[in-house]
Amino acid sequence: MTEKTSAPLDVALAYYRAWTSHQFDKAMTYIAEDIVCQAPAGRLDGAGAFRGFMEPFSQILTRSELIAAFGDDTKAVLMYDTDTVPVQDAPGAECLTVTAGKITHLRIIFDRLPFDAARRAAATGEPAGDE
Amino acid sequence: MTEKTSAPLDVALAYYRAWTSHQFDKAMTYIAEDIVCQAPAGRLDGAGAFRGFMEPFSQILTRSELIAAFGDDTKAVLMYDTDTVPVQDAPGAECLTVTAGKITHLRIIFDRLPFDAARRAAATGEPAGDE
Repeated sequence: MTEKTSAPLDVALAYYRAWTSHQFDKAMTYIAEDIVCQAPAGRLDGAGAFRGFMEPFSQILTRSELIAAFGDDTKAVLMYDTDTVPVQDAPGAECLTVTAGKITHLRIIFDRLPFDAARRAAATGEPAGDE
Repeated sequence: MTEKTSAPLDVALAYYRAWTSHQFDKAMTYIAEDIVCQAPAGRLDGAGAFRGFMEPFSQILTRSELIAAFGDDTKAVLMYDTDTVPVQDAPGAECLTVTAGKITHLRIIFDRLPFDAARRAAATGEPAGDE
């Protein structure tokens, strides 16, 4: 009973620890084949599309720190801060639904604006400013 | 004991219900005078600066829906979706620290990019595209 209740948060934290330690193959073992991910740019369907979105982000990660982690018997919520190569202090929040030990739905929120600014700056050769 | 444990989530939800129902004076009764808010654009110090940031957002809100709400004896986490006048489907997440019934720290995460795109489009008179 207790085990069942804590499972979504355990799975969410195991996934988080894997991707933030650059073990993306391991991270994917927690992801359902038919995962639906609601990301800032839109909906991603399936593990392949999800990996194509999250793995590049994990590769530019230089630091991560968990801010909050909660769960009940169907879902978990994580909030964390990250530093990345182009952007420092880029926090994110996820609401993860876990079914039979796999993440079947993941809603992720983060601010794309500083990443967009960094991309524009890289393209023009000008500094991105404070954002 | 139970009351004390549930207080941060209760306060967070009372604050959320007030600002999402356009009762910003009531929302401010849950905010500590010396609140520190970590927002996407940077740190805001004090209730006045906080109100200057959140009240304009509450005024453009047309719909809100709670996605997740959790808490322990010191903090709460809320995730919600919103529609606003310039941007539909603009989710946010907050980690709120509550001390003696007041929100003393609030970290808020949302994607500024579609709001920035809407502002640029309004300035140029061109449509904002899919964001």
